[in-house]
Amino acid sequence: MLTGVQVVLVGGDARQLEVIRRLTELDATVTLIGFDRLDTPFSGVAKAEWSPDAVRNADALVLPAVGTDDEGLISTLFTDQELKLTEAHLAAIPKKCKLITGMAKPFLRMLCEKFHVELVELFERDDVAIYNSIPTAEGALMMAIQNTDITVHDSNCMVLGLGRTGLTMARTLLAIGAHVKVGVRKDEAFARAFEMGFEPFYMPELARHAGNIDLIFNTIPTMIVTAQVIAQLPLRACIIDLASKPGGTDFRFAEKRGIKALLAPGLPGIVAPKTAGRIIANSLTQIILEDNRLRGNKL
Amino acid sequence: MLTGVQVVLVGGDARQLEVIRRLTELDATVTLIGFDRLDTPFSGVAKAEWSPDAVRNADALVLPAVGTDDEGLISTLFTDQELKLTEAHLAAIPKKCKLITGMAKPFLRMLCEKFHVELVELFERDDVAIYNSIPTAEGALMMAIQNTDITVHDSNCMVLGLGRTGLTMARTLLAIGAHVKVGVRKDEAFARAFEMGFEPFYMPELARHAGNIDLIFNTIPTMIVTAQVIAQLPLRACIIDLASKPGGTDFRFAEKRGIKALLAPGLPGIVAPKTAGRIIANSLTQIILEDNRLRGNKL
Repeated sequence: MLTGVQVVLVGGDARQLEVIRRLTELDATVTLIGFDRLDTPFSGVAKAEWSPDAVRNADALVLPAVGTDDEGLISTLFTDQELKLTEAHLAAIPKKCKLITGMAKPFLRMLCEKFHVELVELFERDDVAIYNSIPTAEGALMMAIQNTDITVHDSNCMVLGLGRTGLTMARTLLAIGAHVKVGVRKDEAFARAFEMGFEPFYMPELARHAGNIDLIFNTIPTMIVTAQVIAQLPLRACIIDLASKPGGTDFRFAEKRGIKALLAPGLPGIVAPKTAGRIIANSLTQIILEDNRLRGNKL
Repeated sequence: MLTGVQVVLVGGDARQLEVIRRLTELDATVTLIGFDRLDTPFSGVAKAEWSPDAVRNADALVLPAVGTDDEGLISTLFTDQELKLTEAHLAAIPKKCKLITGMAKPFLRMLCEKFHVELVELFERDDVAIYNSIPTAEGALMMAIQNTDITVHDSNCMVLGLGRTGLTMARTLLAIGAHVKVGVRKDEAFARAFEMGFEPFYMPELARHAGNIDLIFNTIPTMIVTAQVIAQLPLRACIIDLASKPGGTDFRFAEKRGIKALLAPGLPGIVAPKTAGRIIANSLTQIILEDNRLRGNKL
């Protein structure tokens, strides 16, 4: 339980509702900032205005999944107010307090470093990335069904990268009945891809394998689906880029050749906000619980 | 090959393009009616006006997947003209000629009976229904992803009926990682569902199993998702009805209870027109080839 633990949530979208629900279930003392337009209020949860005072006693300060922008602006869905994270807030955060977010831009990282505030980026965690790969793969599958005139079943798919997202994507496609080629760099990834029934190939061979592909799913966040690769693709092909912005595709050349290429980051929050919220809630409460346990032991 | 075989196509959508392609590959003599707005013309294919004369020498007359409406109107995508099937056309069809369509309304059936024209309904064939169940299941999966705020993975799904479509649907959901209950009537279907890793139950037990369901996929074309069943569903549930119109759901009561219920017939032509066209083309050319072979043997 989190009885007596002070958690302050600032901004966010539907995903934070799952976080609030979980924290209140665990009896944490929750303060919400930027939730004034919330239709269904949570009982036993306080609302506050955004000021340095609001964070002065916090054990955890929770920002939205996307953190802040490059000026410190906090994204909000449930308020019309502008919420901005400034040095004054950071200065007010007590030593014991963790700042928890999905992912942090350089602005947020620098601010936390300057004020010696411990920053937790949930989406950097391997377990969270694997859980998030499930809604990502479903969202990508949905886009594949929407953007082709054939079934994914019996289609020729290619997944680039066999990391946390790539593995889920390839497995999902194979389960649906697609033929799945997987581009890898490492020998162990090649072996795993083979073991799982995919057709593995090494990345330098990519262009050679592009000739008969209906769908490419890229998970690698560097330029990999180059003009050279796109030139080999059939015109019917569709590229779905799941890597973080700006993706790993030469979108300009794809457009020039008339090949559909879609950048699709942030799918979990779009296609399954409830599941995405639960993933954040699970990981976040686990971290706060662990923190609380350690602190208790030290007393 | 279909050299010398006269096939007349009247109306239809993108699916017919696959049929035309296949027939010309097999060297059939193809006449198109209602394709004047087609952007990419097929070489060696004649166009004609819709009149009894157009069918007088046909070996096969091919109507769109949906046949005609109750007044004989033929659905068209590639023309602004109105095409209507009348008694005059039926009277002009030679004895040897088959009339091939996806599914026929009573109007078309009666007309064929009256003029002793052999009617082939492709979607009635078991193999075609199984092939079509693939795009149907993908379309239903797409709708499930779009219409819920959770992932299908780890969700509680229910499939009603383990026929040609139900089996594909249940298998697809299980492959994606859902928990799949399957409602059946027959003992052998119960056994098969168990063998495949689903949780089978007998239909009379339906309401009792509805309590914790996120998604229902109905494939049974009689009223089965009744008000009594809907009353047991959680409010978050979503009903996707794949049975032919009017479906098997009490849509009025679902709306009254605020439960999302979607009727989704004809998914193959919507989500995968090319695959759906290939399915029709394969079956249709097989029938004409077989017909031609038998006729050749008789000579």
